[in-house]
Amino acid sequence: MSETGAGEIPGFWAVVPAGGAGTRLWPLSRRGNPKFLHDLTGAGASLLQQTVERVAPLAGDRVVVVTGAGHAAAVREQLPRLGDAQVLAEPSPRDSMAAIGLAAAVVEARDPEAIIGSFAADHVIPDGDAFRACVAEAVEVARGGRVVTIGIEPTHPSTGFGYIQMGAPIAGVATARRVRQFVEKPSAERASAYLATGEFRWNAGMFVVRAATLLDLLQRWHPALAEGVRAIAADPSRLEELWPSLEKIAIDHAVAEPAADIGVVAVVPGDFAWDDIGDFGSLAAQLPEPGEGPRVLGDADLVRAVGSTGLVVPRGGRPIAVVGLEDVVVVDTGDAVLVTSRERAQEVKKVVEGLTEQGRTDLT
Amino acid sequence: MSETGAGEIPGFWAVVPAGGAGTRLWPLSRRGNPKFLHDLTGAGASLLQQTVERVAPLAGDRVVVVTGAGHAAAVREQLPRLGDAQVLAEPSPRDSMAAIGLAAAVVEARDPEAIIGSFAADHVIPDGDAFRACVAEAVEVARGGRVVTIGIEPTHPSTGFGYIQMGAPIAGVATARRVRQFVEKPSAERASAYLATGEFRWNAGMFVVRAATLLDLLQRWHPALAEGVRAIAADPSRLEELWPSLEKIAIDHAVAEPAADIGVVAVVPGDFAWDDIGDFGSLAAQLPEPGEGPRVLGDADLVRAVGSTGLVVPRGGRPIAVVGLEDVVVVDTGDAVLVTSRERAQEVKKVVEGLTEQGRTDLT
Repeated sequence: MSETGAGEIPGFWAVVPAGGAGTRLWPLSRRGNPKFLHDLTGAGASLLQQTVERVAPLAGDRVVVVTGAGHAAAVREQLPRLGDAQVLAEPSPRDSMAAIGLAAAVVEARDPEAIIGSFAADHVIPDGDAFRACVAEAVEVARGGRVVTIGIEPTHPSTGFGYIQMGAPIAGVATARRVRQFVEKPSAERASAYLATGEFRWNAGMFVVRAATLLDLLQRWHPALAEGVRAIAADPSRLEELWPSLEKIAIDHAVAEPAADIGVVAVVPGDFAWDDIGDFGSLAAQLPEPGEGPRVLGDADLVRAVGSTGLVVPRGGRPIAVVGLEDVVVVDTGDAVLVTSRERAQEVKKVVEGLTEQGRTDLT
Repeated sequence: MSETGAGEIPGFWAVVPAGGAGTRLWPLSRRGNPKFLHDLTGAGASLLQQTVERVAPLAGDRVVVVTGAGHAAAVREQLPRLGDAQVLAEPSPRDSMAAIGLAAAVVEARDPEAIIGSFAADHVIPDGDAFRACVAEAVEVARGGRVVTIGIEPTHPSTGFGYIQMGAPIAGVATARRVRQFVEKPSAERASAYLATGEFRWNAGMFVVRAATLLDLLQRWHPALAEGVRAIAADPSRLEELWPSLEKIAIDHAVAEPAADIGVVAVVPGDFAWDDIGDFGSLAAQLPEPGEGPRVLGDADLVRAVGSTGLVVPRGGRPIAVVGLEDVVVVDTGDAVLVTSRERAQEVKKVVEGLTEQGRTDLT
């Protein structure tokens, strides 16, 4: 149980969108075996399993995972306690609003008063207690009819995340504030300006909201989409028929931003460490710093380092020697080898783009 | 045939010492599969095969290879035209004087007037014609009873090679000069001073000398060693008996340096490019410079490079992606992966030392 006293919350459901190929983590992450299925922190559990475990003290077994049809079997295997109805398989990718909207409709059909919290399957949050304390407060605020997000304290002026501008405090709760606006990924200059104001938080894409409230707001701005997911929830046999016609749109654009414009979004500031492990540079930062040599994800006995730092992932089971390189990244998966630097790790996606262009889908 | 007119020379034998593990080329070069057995230049032939082909226009089939007993089968397989008696298998390593001395004694027994030229199996000389022109002149000088070496024009003040200080020209031949002294691998400062004089050449360990002259000089300074190799040549069945008692000494110390002191050593200056491929940095320099991306030894289709230079060796048959690294070296042999830089490539031997200390002889 949490030390903060944030125990199980009746009527609270966790929705876990498990999507994204993680192409910047190639060759570890593949379309057929994407990053949320991997243990990328050496914790002994995949990112998906860690996400479910993290929220379980609040949601118990009330968890719904939404994933691509191709990954549903792997998700069920990793989460054997979930019933079949708790793993929703998307016939095709239709962006986050359709995925979260369908989960909301399924939960609403079981409990019209339910509150859902949506947490992506591939994020890392080492301090589960701090996370749950924020979620518990977000649930409290969401009961009043608001869409609630969790705003991560920025550690640096990142240009890789969207930001949330906080407004006035909300009376009667500990820390939540109104949201003035969501802003897209900024330039470096603008990001620094955001941080200087103290009003801006990283948008980690976490939303806590009554399922019915989310769907009612969606009904207001995208009625066909709301009606579609509610129709599937009412009769799951219509999934294949209705899914392809659903609008492809992100939840941010479909609901969060327009809801902010009408003043019904709140933010709970979260001071816990958070990362979406976007590339091998941020993956390295999640691993414990060794006394010397590179960080290792996997069997450190396979790594021979001479005057080197960085990250080595010896998934191929073969010895990897690294000599005289600072901040290098070496990933061996047995069928492919990647070598880059922590600094340039974002460009790994170009390799995947090149392989895709050449039809090497066996490797992507 | 050579364009320089250096045709086959009657009575000239090539002696090819094929030894050394090449630990700085790990994991490509192994104790059980050392560098001379590998095609390290993409020429379609191993360094050993290239060495024999290079000298064949002068020596014809008069070639003797001296190698460790463990490599004799591989040497015979790579050089099927050599008779069994032309591959001398050392029961144990006893340094270069025993190896070259045994070959000299075997050749002397067949032809007391024979001249031998000793050329290591793991050197690279792209311009065979220029090499053969030097050797032909060296043979001419050697007929007069001198020990003749070939002095490589230095391209930089290397601290990795020994040097030869040249003296007065020798009358009656094109370019040969007396040798004043051999000097060991110098400091960087001393190497620069050597180059400034114009009198110094790299010692590539090539010796051209009448077999009988070499053995008579050896008899003078190391009589037991000379008698031992001549006894084995007279009765090859005594090899196992006599070999372990032979003195372990390099030909440089046993004969070349004392012979220089008494004024019987000559040098033919060679202006051709030469390299002993001591590490992956010099291996890279042997490969053609591509328009962009790293040099590749092997199948270039396996290499995906984004903003990178250096050397990739995809011997494992798996794709290797390199992103954002300058002068990197990546070697995949299927059972091990090495990543280093061209600059730090000499330190690869530390990996082999570490593996050896840990008893991982399966990998060295």
